[in-house]
Amino acid sequence: MTFKQPEHRLTLIPGPIEFSDPVLGAMSTPSQAHTSPEFIATFQSVLQNLRKVFKSTDPNSQGYVLSGSGTLGWDIAATNLISAGDKVLVLSTGFFSDSFADCLRIYGADVTVITAEVGDVVPLAKVEEALKKDKFKAITITHVDTSTSVVSDVKAISEVVKKVAPETLIIVDGVCSIAVEDLEFDAWGIDFALTASQKAIGVPAGLSIVYASGRALEIALNKKETTFFASLKRWTPIMKAYESGKGAYFATPAIQTITALKVSLDEILNESLEARFAHHEQVSTKFKDAVEKLGLTILPKSRQVAAHGLTAVYFPEGIDGAALLSKLYANGFTIAGGIHKALVGKYFRVGHMGYSVSAGHIDHFLIALEEILHELK
Amino acid sequence: MTFKQPEHRLTLIPGPIEFSDPVLGAMSTPSQAHTSPEFIATFQSVLQNLRKVFKSTDPNSQGYVLSGSGTLGWDIAATNLISAGDKVLVLSTGFFSDSFADCLRIYGADVTVITAEVGDVVPLAKVEEALKKDKFKAITITHVDTSTSVVSDVKAISEVVKKVAPETLIIVDGVCSIAVEDLEFDAWGIDFALTASQKAIGVPAGLSIVYASGRALEIALNKKETTFFASLKRWTPIMKAYESGKGAYFATPAIQTITALKVSLDEILNESLEARFAHHEQVSTKFKDAVEKLGLTILPKSRQVAAHGLTAVYFPEGIDGAALLSKLYANGFTIAGGIHKALVGKYFRVGHMGYSVSAGHIDHFLIALEEILHELK
Repeated sequence: MTFKQPEHRLTLIPGPIEFSDPVLGAMSTPSQAHTSPEFIATFQSVLQNLRKVFKSTDPNSQGYVLSGSGTLGWDIAATNLISAGDKVLVLSTGFFSDSFADCLRIYGADVTVITAEVGDVVPLAKVEEALKKDKFKAITITHVDTSTSVVSDVKAISEVVKKVAPETLIIVDGVCSIAVEDLEFDAWGIDFALTASQKAIGVPAGLSIVYASGRALEIALNKKETTFFASLKRWTPIMKAYESGKGAYFATPAIQTITALKVSLDEILNESLEARFAHHEQVSTKFKDAVEKLGLTILPKSRQVAAHGLTAVYFPEGIDGAALLSKLYANGFTIAGGIHKALVGKYFRVGHMGYSVSAGHIDHFLIALEEILHELK
Repeated sequence: MTFKQPEHRLTLIPGPIEFSDPVLGAMSTPSQAHTSPEFIATFQSVLQNLRKVFKSTDPNSQGYVLSGSGTLGWDIAATNLISAGDKVLVLSTGFFSDSFADCLRIYGADVTVITAEVGDVVPLAKVEEALKKDKFKAITITHVDTSTSVVSDVKAISEVVKKVAPETLIIVDGVCSIAVEDLEFDAWGIDFALTASQKAIGVPAGLSIVYASGRALEIALNKKETTFFASLKRWTPIMKAYESGKGAYFATPAIQTITALKVSLDEILNESLEARFAHHEQVSTKFKDAVEKLGLTILPKSRQVAAHGLTAVYFPEGIDGAALLSKLYANGFTIAGGIHKALVGKYFRVGHMGYSVSAGHIDHFLIALEEILHELK
C-alpha cells in the first residue's frame, strides 16, 4: 500500500514545510508499543542516523528526540547547561535569537546580547571583543534566524570562541539550518545543537531534536536537576538504550512522528548530505536570482549572509503586501509574512527546504509570483 | 480517499492504544501552515470540544494542547501552580503518582506523599487527617494509576478537600482516565487536570493536554515565570486566540497530530461521553469477569477501585509470565508487563480503551488468552 497525498495548497513557508509521500504515509503507521521490537528498531535507526546528520562520530556525544518543538530545545539548553547567574553571550540576528535570550533569562542566566544590524550578521570582531571582555559560560548562535533569513557563519564564530575562550560552550540553534546548511558538530567543536522536525528535517511538527557533546553532557549529568521533562539526566539513559536496541521508558515517545523521522532521515542520507546542501544552494540561488530579476530586494544585506532554506523578500513599492499574500494563497501557495519587529508588514518569506526543493514546487511558485505581481501593478 | 489501516499486531497495552482508521488517516494530512484557515478551524474545534470532554462551561477555565507527553503535564502543573517551598500533598496509588511527586520535588515543592496499600486507594480519612494537620498549596490525585490499574474516587476526595481545605488546589493526573472515567471539572471543583493523546483520547502519542480552572490560571498568570516552554503565561493568549478562530504563535503546534485529535474528539462526542463511559465499564466488567473465570486474580483489591480502561492481572501460579506475554505477542497481541516496583514480573496489564473497545479487539484477545493459558499449563 503506497501512500500518495492528495493535491493541496502548497505550504511554502519556512516550516512546517511540505512532506514527501513516504514521510507523510509513515505518520499513519498503526499503533505500536513504545517498547515493541518494531519501534525499538525505528528509534535505533533514528538515533544512529542523527549522528550522521550532525556529523558526529564522538562516542561521548548523544542525540535526543523528544515530543516538543524547536522552542523546547532552548529550554533543554537553558536548564541542562546553564545555572542561574551564569553569563551567556547571545548573538542576535533576529526574532528567534532574541526569544532564545528570553528563554535563558527565565531560567536566571545573565544574558548579554549582541544585536546585528537587520539583515546582517554579528561582526566577528564584536564577538571576539565581547569574549575577551567577559567570561561566558556559553555563547548562543542562531544558525539561520527564520525571521530575517540571515545565516551566521558558525564555523568562523566557533574558531573565534576556540581561540579566545575555549571553555565557553557553543550552543547552536539549528532549527532552520540542520539538513540544509552544513553543520560539523565535532569538527567545529559545537557543544549543543537543537532543531525541530518540521523544518529541513522534513517531518510534521511535534519533535524537538537536540544533540549534545561529551563536554556538554558532563555538565548536564552532574548538574542539580532544575527541570523534569527536559532533563538530559532522565533522557540520556533512555536514548542510549534505544540507540543500542533496547526499550526504555521515561515518557511515551511520539511513535508515529518518530517513524516518519526514520523515513525522512533515510531519504536525507540516501541522497548524501553534501548533495543535499548543494541542491538547496542551487535552488536558493535560482530563486533569489529570479526574485531580483523581478525587481524585488531580499532582506539580507548580501548573498553571503542569506540562508539557503528560505528567502525573505521586501514587498515591492506600490504593492499591497496583504493583497499579494492573499492572491498567492488563492492560487495555491501559502507563504509567510515577516515577523521581525522592525519590519512587520514590509516583507514576506518563502521556504525552499526538503521535499519542495526536489518536487519542483519552487518553480511553480515563481511562475505564480511573477503573474500576480504583474496583475497587482 | 478513505484510509484503512493494514492488519497488524494489536497493541492492547494501557497506551498507546489502537487508533480508529479516521484518526490514523488524519495523521497523514498534507502540510498546512500553523496559521492557515484550515488549521485554525481544526484547533478551534479541538479547544472548544475539550471543554465538553472536561465538562467545563466556566468561561475562565482554559484547555491547552502542547507538543509533549503526559509527563510534560506534571511539569506544567509544577511550574505554573507551585512555587519553591510550597507544600503539596500527593496521594499515591502507584508508580505514576510517585513520579509526579519526583517532578514536584525537582521544582522545589515540599512534598508529602500518602501511599495507598498496593492495589488500593488512599482512605478518605487519611486525606482528611493530612489536610487538617497541615496547610497545602495543592493536592495531587492520580485518577487512574496505570501501574496498578487502581482508580481513585476523585469526586469523594474533592469533597473532602472542599470541606477541610477549600483553598488547596486540586490537581488531577487524568492520563489514563480522561475520556474513559467520568471527570466533572467544574462540578467537582478541579483546578488542573492533565492527560496525553495516546490513552483514552485515542490519538497517537505526542500531545500533552491540560485543563486549568480560572482559580489556577489566576495563580499561573500572576506568578514569576520559572519555565519557558511549559509557561501558561506564554500559552494562554495562544490558546485563547485559536479557540476564538485566530492564529497566534509561540511554538509550532503538531498540526497533523492535532488534526487527528480533532477527529478523535468528534468521534468521542458524537457517541456522547455518558454512552462512552458506560460502554467502557461494560467491556471492563466483561473482561474482568472473564479473566476471573479463567482462575486469574486482578491486582486491585476490589472491583470498586479497579479502573475501566485497563486491567492488571497477576500471572497465575505455575505459569511463566514472560512465556505468556511472548506467546500472546506471537499470536498478534502486544500487552504490557507490570511496572509497580514491588510487583515487577508478577502481573500483566491489558488496555481496553477507545477503538479497541468498539472494534471487538478485547473479545479476540480473550479467546487467545484462554487458549494460550491452556497450552502453558
